[in-house]
Amino acid sequence: MPKRPLILVTNDDGITAPGIRTLISVMNEIGDVVVIAPDSPQSGMGHAITLDSTIYCDAVTIDEGDQLEYRCSGTPADCVKMAISEILNKKPDLCVSGINHGSNSSINVIYSGTMSAAIEAGIEGIPAIGFSLLDYSWNANFEGLKKHIKKLALEVLQNGLPDGVVLNVNFPKTENDFKGIKVCRQARANWVEEFDKRTNPQGKEYYWLTGKFVNLDQGEDTDVWALENELVSVVPVHFDLTAHHFIQKLNSWDL
Amino acid sequence: MPKRPLILVTNDDGITAPGIRTLISVMNEIGDVVVIAPDSPQSGMGHAITLDSTIYCDAVTIDEGDQLEYRCSGTPADCVKMAISEILNKKPDLCVSGINHGSNSSINVIYSGTMSAAIEAGIEGIPAIGFSLLDYSWNANFEGLKKHIKKLALEVLQNGLPDGVVLNVNFPKTENDFKGIKVCRQARANWVEEFDKRTNPQGKEYYWLTGKFVNLDQGEDTDVWALENELVSVVPVHFDLTAHHFIQKLNSWDL
Repeated sequence: MPKRPLILVTNDDGITAPGIRTLISVMNEIGDVVVIAPDSPQSGMGHAITLDSTIYCDAVTIDEGDQLEYRCSGTPADCVKMAISEILNKKPDLCVSGINHGSNSSINVIYSGTMSAAIEAGIEGIPAIGFSLLDYSWNANFEGLKKHIKKLALEVLQNGLPDGVVLNVNFPKTENDFKGIKVCRQARANWVEEFDKRTNPQGKEYYWLTGKFVNLDQGEDTDVWALENELVSVVPVHFDLTAHHFIQKLNSWDL
Repeated sequence: MPKRPLILVTNDDGITAPGIRTLISVMNEIGDVVVIAPDSPQSGMGHAITLDSTIYCDAVTIDEGDQLEYRCSGTPADCVKMAISEILNKKPDLCVSGINHGSNSSINVIYSGTMSAAIEAGIEGIPAIGFSLLDYSWNANFEGLKKHIKKLALEVLQNGLPDGVVLNVNFPKTENDFKGIKVCRQARANWVEEFDKRTNPQGKEYYWLTGKFVNLDQGEDTDVWALENELVSVVPVHFDLTAHHFIQKLNSWDL
């Protein structure tokens, strides 16, 4: 671990969100921090990148911390690409994303801008962690997370991560301290959508996406289980989507 | 396999793209087809969903085929959610996405709107296939793909797919017929970005994302290798991103 590691910080709730401000303050205790984060909320952006449009990226000062900061008009994945290709003059030692206002456990990892930024860093060979708190409110209390985030970041800086693996860390919402930290697998759950159908002032129908999260996974080794039991969940995540277990069977098909 | 399976068709290049028009014509030979596709191009949208904005979805007639069609203002993933929750009165037997104008091999699966639609269907428990052709041009020649697409769709209808697995099918660009079909794993490759920096008429700097695809994976079992060798690649893809191979090691950390 370098004496003053270079740490890239980003998120999907936008550069002024309390979650990222907390994360920046913790990272300032560990290393030299550069923030490149969206200029507006980007929740649910998944791994979107900006192909057909321009991207702006401007230096800003938001508080009195030691970090350098840039706000970017792109998606979370764009922010990481921009950081690595344009802003930083060396590869960061760590990328942290979040703290997301809301859970990114289970299938939410797929829709999450927070996790897409961490995964993008992982694709670039940078150890990365996405942090999320199971509290969607803007004024969520992040105070109790700080010591755990610092410890996890130091562990990753110390031990590194295997090529192609990043961490998805979710904190339960609780008044007390957490009951512990649990290494988990992603629960097999999904959203059951309910579109809220309305009529606009011109008489045209439109929809709002809403839904209920449904977890049918009874395992006690999942991130959802951990959060329900006041444990911090840590899921190692990779971006090799190959379903290796089905390759042999698929080879027996008449293709 | 039902006598007339219900087939959902979508894509990310937009409902008028030649790729999806070809796919619809093939599916009309197999079953009852309902198309719900974006009203405009959505390349690079990854698994984005529309949380903070409205979605429109309108019935349209584009050609004389037997399919029912709806154009949707949302992302590819939104289209699938909309289809299942609002448009269809039963679960489709198959969802096909594409044919994408451009490759979705290797890491492109992460950025791909085409594959996010297939994955979204997979999350909902629907057998799904994403089809892509390694030719970015609007007027790409899809003719030679038809018989292979039909065969693959019939195989999936016949055999089903395991829970949580969808297929990512990529066709090489070739004047001749393909040399065969190969079941592959996702190559470990990435994009090396180069942002094209420009100045707008008001004197403000902005960027366009560009990049080169770099494949350092020497394996002869990857999708990139197959395409380079004029083979159609078929990668089984899943959305359990858990890096199971790292769980044991991670448990030995002092968390």
